[in-house]
Amino acid sequence: MPISKIYKLYFSGDRKYIRSLKNILGFVPNNLALYKLAFRHKSAAEEVKTGVKNSNERLEFLGDAVLGAVVAEVLFKKFPFKDEGFLTELRSKIVNRIFLNQLAKKIGLSDLIILDTKSINVAARTGSLLGDAFEALIGAIYLDKGFDFTRDFIIQTIIKPHVDINQLEITESNFKSKLLIWCQREGKILVFELKETTENGNKKLFTMEAQIDGKAYGIGSDFNKKNAEKMAAEKACLELKI
Amino acid sequence: MPISKIYKLYFSGDRKYIRSLKNILGFVPNNLALYKLAFRHKSAAEEVKTGVKNSNERLEFLGDAVLGAVVAEVLFKKFPFKDEGFLTELRSKIVNRIFLNQLAKKIGLSDLIILDTKSINVAARTGSLLGDAFEALIGAIYLDKGFDFTRDFIIQTIIKPHVDINQLEITESNFKSKLLIWCQREGKILVFELKETTENGNKKLFTMEAQIDGKAYGIGSDFNKKNAEKMAAEKACLELKI
Repeated sequence: MPISKIYKLYFSGDRKYIRSLKNILGFVPNNLALYKLAFRHKSAAEEVKTGVKNSNERLEFLGDAVLGAVVAEVLFKKFPFKDEGFLTELRSKIVNRIFLNQLAKKIGLSDLIILDTKSINVAARTGSLLGDAFEALIGAIYLDKGFDFTRDFIIQTIIKPHVDINQLEITESNFKSKLLIWCQREGKILVFELKETTENGNKKLFTMEAQIDGKAYGIGSDFNKKNAEKMAAEKACLELKI
Repeated sequence: MPISKIYKLYFSGDRKYIRSLKNILGFVPNNLALYKLAFRHKSAAEEVKTGVKNSNERLEFLGDAVLGAVVAEVLFKKFPFKDEGFLTELRSKIVNRIFLNQLAKKIGLSDLIILDTKSINVAARTGSLLGDAFEALIGAIYLDKGFDFTRDFIIQTIIKPHVDINQLEITESNFKSKLLIWCQREGKILVFELKETTENGNKKLFTMEAQIDGKAYGIGSDFNKKNAEKMAAEKACLELKI
């Protein structure tokens, strides 16, 4: 970036905002509007055109895809002798909502998020809001600085200091264990119940339901019972905002 | 690439192979081994290390992610006033197996694929094999030439000449219509049956089943009935290899 531009940014009314961004991200953004958009929760969005609001949801869509590609490459190269099933599962442990929420909190995104606290409830505030903003931030960096810069940012600033891939590799799939830990803490009983078995040629499709204290919270279907349970647990986590 | 390397490649035993690749891709690859791996179906894979086979499945995992990111950006920029739900749905019409199979066939990948016809049946051969190889090819190009090159390749060589985004925008979600078209052609009756409604707080979770001539082929659950039908249709398409 030319010095004149840095000078202009630093002495604009956004000086303080740029400084907080630089502290968190480690670089000075070019297009500040993109980052402001990334941190604008839908509760605080304004209509910029008939039917179009300036929330971070579009950037989240883009950032989710870019993050997925970078994490895929990191795992592909880190584990040259593991198959695609292993890589897919390990990636889902990194890019899932719960993990991204924690990550966003760790790097200090909470203070930057703009939301309307009157119009959303506490559950929504502690829900996927931080992880969504994190993904939107990745989308903003991608549009602002390009792929290679974003890739370096994800690897150097996020993965290396904050993600212990070797630890994730040995932990159980996140949603099931998250749900179990939450139930244990809340003194509730978690049961996965087989609701239905559908014969499908020579295959069986299992529908599993995650029940907490006897109440249904999520359902999942797969040809593998464990996978159906994971899907059910994921839905229950989303439903319970954990 | 230095002229000496091009010279070496052209006069190696792989000369004919490189020429076919160049005809299809429009460029000369650097690392030929990556492309050979991208076209090696698991039926023809050899064990390169204990428990590790040289099939294209790992490259497919990587290519799927890179393709997803590029298509996300294309749609994000093409539709600046559409929300993330629209973008997600439109992307799934481009990156789904059926569409990618057709695309791979169109650009002529069929002849490059290495498979063991003895060990796989006809259904598998006409299944997702081509689309899988196409994704693996994207993974190979990414590792060989980097993101920007791959992005240009996807946009200039694939999307611009072969993908009519405006047409896709107005077509119904692919899996449901694909399944319906197939059933009509085969003279079969397709029904989506509501199998279960689960009360979930003030939300209802619907489980829909795709039945063809009364037989269950796929099940899907969502808080929205239409989405549950789409999931069920997607599973039925995969099951029927269409």
